[in-house]
Amino acid sequence: MSMSEDEIVAWFQRKSRLPRKKFPIGIGDDMAQVRLDNGTTVFITTDMLLEGVHFDLQRATLKQVGYKAMAVNLSDCAAMATIPVAAVVSVALPKGFGARELKQLHLGIVQAGRRFGCELVGGDITSWHKDAPFAVSVAMISKQAANKPVKRSGAKPGDIVCVTGCLGGSLAGKHLRFVPRVREAIKIAQMVKLHSMMDLSDGLSSDLPRICRLSSVGAILDAKRIPFSMQARKSPDPFGSALNDGEDFELLFTLSPNQCRKLLDEWDDPLSITPIGEMTAAKKLKINMADDHLVPLRPKGYDHLRKNNPR
Amino acid sequence: MSMSEDEIVAWFQRKSRLPRKKFPIGIGDDMAQVRLDNGTTVFITTDMLLEGVHFDLQRATLKQVGYKAMAVNLSDCAAMATIPVAAVVSVALPKGFGARELKQLHLGIVQAGRRFGCELVGGDITSWHKDAPFAVSVAMISKQAANKPVKRSGAKPGDIVCVTGCLGGSLAGKHLRFVPRVREAIKIAQMVKLHSMMDLSDGLSSDLPRICRLSSVGAILDAKRIPFSMQARKSPDPFGSALNDGEDFELLFTLSPNQCRKLLDEWDDPLSITPIGEMTAAKKLKINMADDHLVPLRPKGYDHLRKNNPR
Repeated sequence: MSMSEDEIVAWFQRKSRLPRKKFPIGIGDDMAQVRLDNGTTVFITTDMLLEGVHFDLQRATLKQVGYKAMAVNLSDCAAMATIPVAAVVSVALPKGFGARELKQLHLGIVQAGRRFGCELVGGDITSWHKDAPFAVSVAMISKQAANKPVKRSGAKPGDIVCVTGCLGGSLAGKHLRFVPRVREAIKIAQMVKLHSMMDLSDGLSSDLPRICRLSSVGAILDAKRIPFSMQARKSPDPFGSALNDGEDFELLFTLSPNQCRKLLDEWDDPLSITPIGEMTAAKKLKINMADDHLVPLRPKGYDHLRKNNPR
Repeated sequence: MSMSEDEIVAWFQRKSRLPRKKFPIGIGDDMAQVRLDNGTTVFITTDMLLEGVHFDLQRATLKQVGYKAMAVNLSDCAAMATIPVAAVVSVALPKGFGARELKQLHLGIVQAGRRFGCELVGGDITSWHKDAPFAVSVAMISKQAANKPVKRSGAKPGDIVCVTGCLGGSLAGKHLRFVPRVREAIKIAQMVKLHSMMDLSDGLSSDLPRICRLSSVGAILDAKRIPFSMQARKSPDPFGSALNDGEDFELLFTLSPNQCRKLLDEWDDPLSITPIGEMTAAKKLKINMADDHLVPLRPKGYDHLRKNNPR
C-alpha cells in the first residue's frame, strides 16, 4: 500500500466530508478556513521542520531554525493572501537541549513573526527520552484581508501561470532566510482577480500539479520563461534545479490573460513576477522545451512518503 | 543556565508583551485567546506527543496515539471551558511508516475529534531521513461558549480547590483513552462562577503551583480528601501516585465557598467533583496530612526540562 504524499492527502480529504458552510476551505489547500458562529472566518495551517530533513544543525543556527519554522507557515498565509495573526510552537528537544537552545529558537521565531505582525501566543515543550533529533512544529492562524482568500482550486483553462522571484537552489541558503511573500500576495490579490494560488514548497514540478488536480485542468509551461535563481544557474542542471529543488517559497498563481496584463503593467514592486505558461482544458502537464519540443512535466520535487528523494 | 519548564515558559511570557486588547489571554495559560477584527475571539493551543515519552508503540496502537494526540488538546479546550472547533495535525514519521500507519492514526484523531464536534481540517506529513522515533503535534482552535473563558490566573484567597474524577496511575492505561472533560467544564462554568481552572496534565503537585503563581496566591490541600484512582490505590505509594503521576486530564478549578456549595448541591453528572483544599493569601503551597501535620507541597510531577523525571 505505497501511496505518495499527494495520494494520502487526497484520501484524508475524501474522508473528511467537512460541512462547507462551517469549513469553506478544508484539507488539501495551503490553509483551512473556519467560519465561527457570527460569520467571521479564521484560517489555520501547520508545518513541521525536522533536523536532518529541513535543516542541519551543523549548518544552521537555532535562531535560523526558529525563523524558518515561522516563515514556512507565514508563506502559507501568503499563499491564501491572508493576514497572519498568531502562532503556537511545539518542540521535541534532543537530550542536552534546554533553556539556552529554546531562547535562541525563540529569537528567530519572534524575528520572523513580528515582521508580519504575527505574535507567538503559546506552545508546548517536550523532550525525547532517548537519543533523537530536534523537531519543531508551528501552527498559525490568519485572518481575511480586504481581498477574498485565494484557493488552489480555482484555476481555469486559458489562465496565465505566474511565479514571483527566481526558482531553484534554495537549499544553498535561501531556505533559512527567505522572506515569505505575505505583503506581495495581498497586494497582488487586491490589484487583480486571482483564480488560484499556492506557495512553492516542494518544487514547481510537484506543486503545479496540485493546482491542476484541484482545479481539474492541465498546464503547458514555457521552459524559456522559467526564472532561474543564481544558485540554479551554477548547478550542473539549472533547469532541473529550478523545476525540482523545492523550498523556493515563492508564489505560484494563475489569472486571466487580461488580468495578467494589468498586473504586469501596474506592478511597481521590486519582486519580479514572471508568466511561465498557461492552464489548459486538457488535464495534462507539459513543458515546451527550448527547442519547441513539448514534453510531459513529471513531479520530481520532494515527497515525504517517497523512499528515494532527490535530496 | 538550567531552567525548569515553568521558568522558561515564564521567560517567554515576559518576552512576549502581547497587546492585551488583541490577545486577552497569552502565553502560560491552557490556551491563548485571539481577538479578530470585529471582536470575535478564537482560542488556540498546541500539544506534541513523542514516542517513548507520551506513548510506547509496543503498548499502544497508532489509533490510540491519534486519539490521545487530539484528546490532550481537547482537554486544553476543556480547561478554558471553550468549545473545540477544528484541529491541524503534523507528524514526523519514522522510516517504514507510510499510508497504512497514517490511516490508523487518522482513525483515532477523527474518533476523538468528532465526539466533540472538532474537525480535522489540515496537517503536515514529514518523514525522518535517519532512524528516529515518531512524533505527532496537534494544534486546535476553539470558540467561546455562553460562559466566559476560565483562566488560570483568577484564583482568590479563600477559594475552594476542586478536582473532577480520580487521580493517579493514568499511565497504566487511562492516558490512552481518557475522555476530555469538555462537556463537564462548560456545564460547570455555566452553573457557577469559576475563578480559575486548568487541566491536570503534569500532576497535581506540579499543576496547582501554576494556578497559584499566576494568581499570586497559595494553597493548603487536605490529604484526606484527595480522590485516589483504583490504579493509585494499587501502587506502593498511593498518595505520591495521586499527587505526582500526571496525565490525569481531570479538571482542577477554584471558586468561592458559596459557589462551591451551590455546585455540589446541584451537580447531577456521573463525574465526581471533590473539594480538596483552599486557596490562601500566603503564597505557600502546603498539604494537611492525615495526621493533621502541615507539610510543604513540592512539585514532583513531570518537567520536560528536568534531567531526572520520576517516569
